[in-house]
Amino acid sequence: MAGGPIPILKIGPTLLATIQIDLHDTVVDAFQNDVLEEIERTSAKGLIIDISALETVDSYVARTLANTGKMAKLMGTNTVIVGMRPAVAATLVRMGYFMEGIDTALSLEEGLELQKIRTTVPDTE
Amino acid sequence: MAGGPIPILKIGPTLLATIQIDLHDTVVDAFQNDVLEEIERTSAKGLIIDISALETVDSYVARTLANTGKMAKLMGTNTVIVGMRPAVAATLVRMGYFMEGIDTALSLEEGLELQKIRTTVPDTE
Repeated sequence: MAGGPIPILKIGPTLLATIQIDLHDTVVDAFQNDVLEEIERTSAKGLIIDISALETVDSYVARTLANTGKMAKLMGTNTVIVGMRPAVAATLVRMGYFMEGIDTALSLEEGLELQKIRTTVPDTE
Repeated sequence: MAGGPIPILKIGPTLLATIQIDLHDTVVDAFQNDVLEEIERTSAKGLIIDISALETVDSYVARTLANTGKMAKLMGTNTVIVGMRPAVAATLVRMGYFMEGIDTALSLEEGLELQKIRTTVPDTE
């Protein structure tokens, strides 16, 4: 588990980061660092970011979360963002952050299920 | 079923929204809100928007429909737009709204069939 304000747990081959606090610029920067370091340290095949507690996002947080997924992907780790609320989804699309290449799922259960598929059958992108 | 002017029904794991009236800006905004809230409330895995009754679209309605699909996707719900008329398809393409990342089908039956496939085998986008 990383030492930052956002806990990052390892469940089998998957890292699970649950965002339970409001994300300010410095927090989301530290989170991005922690996640990438945990991926390297644990060789996790998948990353799930649970943002169901997040009511709103600003453009910096949105971009940083999307970039974190892209960075994880470059390291060889598939990202699934779960639990996005309607207002957050609306903000992201209106700001033009469609999060290409990042998987989404309604709930943590579905996210874990999707990771199981993704990390056994590599996608054909 | 949502309370807006456009009925949103749940069929198994799929939400079905049938547009039967002309879409004005305020109606399509309310529709977008209703759909996203229904997805959150029902945890629907798929969304089908039937626009076969729609004879024309203006650019605001086109953009809002396309964005609604993208927002649903970010929440983890796959969108299929069914029954698009030739004039509407022509308008959308001419306006540059190709609706990337959104599935389309000729009829409601095919849309339901496509959703069944999509919600069991996640796409590889």
